Amino acid sequence: MRVYNFAAGPATMPLDVLTRAQSELTDWADEGMSVMEVSHRSAAFVRTAEGAESRLRSLLGLGDDYEVLFLQGGATGQFSAVPLNLTAPGATVDYVNTGAWSAKAIKEARKYAQVRVVADEEATGYASAPEPGTLASGPGAAYLHYTPNETIGGVEFGYVPSVEAPLVADMSSTILSRPIDVSQFGLIYAGAQKNLGPAGLCVVIVRTDLLGRARPETPSVWDYRQMAAAGSMLNTPPTFAWYLLGLTLEWIEQTGGLSAMAERNQAKAAMLYASIDGSDYYSNPVAPDARSWMNVPFLLADPSREADFLAGAKAAGLANLEGHRSVGGMRASIYNAMPLEGVRALTDYMADFERHHA
Amino acid sequence: MRVYNFAAGPATMPLDVLTRAQSELTDWADEGMSVMEVSHRSAAFVRTAEGAESRLRSLLGLGDDYEVLFLQGGATGQFSAVPLNLTAPGATVDYVNTGAWSAKAIKEARKYAQVRVVADEEATGYASAPEPGTLASGPGAAYLHYTPNETIGGVEFGYVPSVEAPLVADMSSTILSRPIDVSQFGLIYAGAQKNLGPAGLCVVIVRTDLLGRARPETPSVWDYRQMAAAGSMLNTPPTFAWYLLGLTLEWIEQTGGLSAMAERNQAKAAMLYASIDGSDYYSNPVAPDARSWMNVPFLLADPSREADFLAGAKAAGLANLEGHRSVGGMRASIYNAMPLEGVRALTDYMADFERHHA
Repeated sequence: MRVYNFAAGPATMPLDVLTRAQSELTDWADEGMSVMEVSHRSAAFVRTAEGAESRLRSLLGLGDDYEVLFLQGGATGQFSAVPLNLTAPGATVDYVNTGAWSAKAIKEARKYAQVRVVADEEATGYASAPEPGTLASGPGAAYLHYTPNETIGGVEFGYVPSVEAPLVADMSSTILSRPIDVSQFGLIYAGAQKNLGPAGLCVVIVRTDLLGRARPETPSVWDYRQMAAAGSMLNTPPTFAWYLLGLTLEWIEQTGGLSAMAERNQAKAAMLYASIDGSDYYSNPVAPDARSWMNVPFLLADPSREADFLAGAKAAGLANLEGHRSVGGMRASIYNAMPLEGVRALTDYMADFERHHA
Repeated sequence: MRVYNFAAGPATMPLDVLTRAQSELTDWADEGMSVMEVSHRSAAFVRTAEGAESRLRSLLGLGDDYEVLFLQGGATGQFSAVPLNLTAPGATVDYVNTGAWSAKAIKEARKYAQVRVVADEEATGYASAPEPGTLASGPGAAYLHYTPNETIGGVEFGYVPSVEAPLVADMSSTILSRPIDVSQFGLIYAGAQKNLGPAGLCVVIVRTDLLGRARPETPSVWDYRQMAAAGSMLNTPPTFAWYLLGLTLEWIEQTGGLSAMAERNQAKAAMLYASIDGSDYYSNPVAPDARSWMNVPFLLADPSREADFLAGAKAAGLANLEGHRSVGGMRASIYNAMPLEGVRALTDYMADFERHHA
C-alpha cells in the first residue's frame, strides 16, 4: 500500500508517472525492450530526450539564449563544475550562505576560486534569508551564487536577488514548484531527485554568453559548451532518469502547469504552517518571510516524544518525517508530487497527537 | 513482445531483473513507495546498496585491499577522474591504443598528464591487440591504461598485460563476463550499461594504496578517497541504477556465477564466429586471437544489401544490428544478458538471408 512520503530527496514521485513507467518497463514505445535497453542515439530515445527538453523549455519560457543540459553528478557535481566553467584561476566569486547546502557549495568553490561570502545567515542559526534589496555582488565577481531554498533548514528566499554579476542558483529543491523568470539568472542547476524525477540526473540551464569559458582541466562530461554541442550526449546519459523527467514534465502540464502547481504548493505550505502556528505544541524556527514552501521543519514542545510521534505517523501511513540528522526535530518535505490530501493527513495526525500528548 | 536486442549499450538486460523491478516499482520492500523514492540513507536502501557491493566483492573475490565505488559520469567521466586521482601535474602515463574508446581515453588524459602511447594498433585498422608479452610500461609511468575490449571494433585482449606500473582497465564491456584475477589490476572501471545494469552508474574498483593521491582540483564527487570514506554517498547516488545492479548481480549468482557465465558467453561467441567463418557471405575483420566475446562486427559481401538485412532482421525480432556509425557494417553485441537462443536466432537468420541473397 502506498504511503504519504515526506522524504527530502530522493522524494515522492507522481504515482501516474510511476504506473506509466511500470506498464512499459519491459516493452517501451513498441520497441520490444525497456527504455533502459535502447541506445541513447536511437530515434525513439532521441524523440523522448528532445521531448523532455522541449517541455522544460515551454514550462519555463526559455528562449534560444539558454542552453539546457542533462548531466550526471548531481548538484554536488555542479559545486565543482560551476567554478570550473565560469572562472579562470585566481578569479573572485561571491556566495550567499543561508545553510548547509550553501556551505557545501562554498567549500567546494574555494578549491577553484577566491570566494567572498557576501551575506551569511549563520548567526541567526540559518533561520532567515537576507533582507530584500540588501544583496549585491562585489567588484569583479565572476558570478554570485545562492541557494533559493535550503532543504535542511527550510529557509527560502521570497524574492530573486538583483545583482550585477551573473546570478547562479542551486534550484534543486524548488525548480518547477512555481513560475520563475529565468532571464534573471545566468545559470540554474537542479538535481532531479526532488521535483524532476529520480536521482542520477542534474539539469543545468545556462545563458549562452556564459559558455566557452571552461578551464582546460574541466572534465569533458562537465564542460558546458562541449555538452551543449553534443546535445548532452558526449557520453551515455542516464536514459531512464531522462525518460522519467519527461513523464514528470508531462504530468505537470496535465495538472495545469506551473501556475496551478504554485497554487497547490502554496496551499499545502499554508495549511501546514497554520497547523504549526495555531498550536502551542509544534513550532517552526524560521522567520515567517523566509519559510520554505517545500521543506517544513518543526519541533515538538517535548522532544522526548519524537520517537512516539514518528512511530504513530508511520502507523498512520505518513513516512519519513524525521528531521535531518544535523538539526533533529521533524521535517515534512512537500514537493510538487505530494498531494494536498497528504498534507491534510499530516495536519490531522499532528492535531490528534497533540490532543493525546500535550 | 520482447525482441532479441543486440545493442552495444545501453544494452539488453535480464528479463528476470526487469520483471522483478516492474513488480515492485510503486511499492518496494514493504516501504509503500518506489525504491526511487526512498532516501539513499534509509536503512532499506543502505541494505540494498551494501548487498550489491557485497555480491560484487564475492563474485570478483575482492579483499579489503580494494575499494568499490559507485559513481556517476560513466566511463567517459573516469577518463578525467583517473589522471586527476592518480597523477600529479607533469606526470607521465602510459596508454595502449586499440580503438575508438582507447583513443577517447588518451585524448582526455592529455589534458592532465604527459601521455605516452606505448602500443598502437591503428595501423592494423584496429583489428588486433598487441602480441602477448610485448607490452611494458615506460620509466616513471604513474599507470598503464588499456581497454580490454573495444566495443566498436570488437577487439579484445585474450590476456591481461603484466607491466610494472599499476594497470588501469576500462572494463565497461567485459566486466563480469568471465572470472578475472583482480589482483593483476590497480584500478578497474566500468560503465554499467552493458553488463551491470542501466546507464548512469559507473563502478570503480581501486586498490587502496592508490587512494589519497587526488589533485586538489579533483571534483569531490570523483575523489576516490573521499567517496570511499563516504560509502559512495558524498552526494546522492543514482539509487535506482544501484538497485538494478544488485538485482543483476543476484541474477548472475543464480545462473551459476562467473564460470557459468564465461561458458555461456564463449559458446555464444563461438556459435556466431563459426557462422561467419563458415560462410562466404559474411566476414569479420578482427585477428582471430583478438576477437571479442561481447561485440561481434561483421560485413556482408554485398554492402548494398545492408538495409535489406536489417529490415529482415527486425521483422524476425532481431533488433539493433547496425554497426557503429564510424565503421558501418553490422555488429551484434552479445553481453551476459543475451541468451544463447538469441544468438541461434541470429545465426539462423543470417544463414537464411545468405541463401536468399548470396
